[in-house]
Amino acid sequence: MAVMPEWWGGRDLRGMLPHIFFEHFRGTSLIAEHEDRLLGFLVGFFCPDHADEAYIHFVGVDPSWRRVGLGGDLYRRFFALARAEGRSVVRAVTGPVNTGSIAFHTALGFSILPGDAEVDGLPVTADPGPQGDSVVHFELVLGGEGGA
Amino acid sequence: MAVMPEWWGGRDLRGMLPHIFFEHFRGTSLIAEHEDRLLGFLVGFFCPDHADEAYIHFVGVDPSWRRVGLGGDLYRRFFALARAEGRSVVRAVTGPVNTGSIAFHTALGFSILPGDAEVDGLPVTADPGPQGDSVVHFELVLGGEGGA
Repeated sequence: MAVMPEWWGGRDLRGMLPHIFFEHFRGTSLIAEHEDRLLGFLVGFFCPDHADEAYIHFVGVDPSWRRVGLGGDLYRRFFALARAEGRSVVRAVTGPVNTGSIAFHTALGFSILPGDAEVDGLPVTADPGPQGDSVVHFELVLGGEGGA
Repeated sequence: MAVMPEWWGGRDLRGMLPHIFFEHFRGTSLIAEHEDRLLGFLVGFFCPDHADEAYIHFVGVDPSWRRVGLGGDLYRRFFALARAEGRSVVRAVTGPVNTGSIAFHTALGFSILPGDAEVDGLPVTADPGPQGDSVVHFELVLGGEGGA
């Protein structure tokens, strides 16, 4: 909570992480630390409704530790957790404006799923959640990971 | 999403229900309908970190259908789902100002768990989530339900 405004350039995305994630989803969440300093985190879960799927809900990396592969490393460790639990597909979403996130997911081997509309040439679907914006859906079939 | 501002008297709590709940937690979420009209809903999950626990995250009832037992009915149906899945404990939280919610949970058989501070005589713990407020923790051991 404390690092979020700084890591997201002043945007307050703390609402993405209600307390339940800290209490009930630790087993599928990861942190990266260096000398007791938090450098990055990944919050995910194994989808209860879809026995083959794991979902990456939210990921952050300290701005001064970006572009060294920390995000990719967190993702790959989550892939390993998912595979060990018999999950074969990992999903995530982002907004169509997040071109950096789209490049990151594509480099890791994620495909962009078909949507019901298009924004800037990207297939999107309406987000049923509170933001109400359209989102790009990513899917990675485990075994097809890239090296980003 | 559409009913939430009205059901909560203009408070915007839509942030409590990010899209993941609509996509991945349907199996532990319930709706009450009458002639195709939504009257109430309960969003819960089986805690992945605690094999014996189920958690009720968010519940709403149409203001014109309150005080007829719909909330209690949704809770009891969730208890049955939890029991069928081998969960023995149901948890929930609320804010210490929500005296109606506290009375409701107590009548259903929930206990208030010890906290690390007190607000209005109620044991509370600091909410690690974005609201940052203190919350009251409820626990119900299945088999000890009341009839509210």
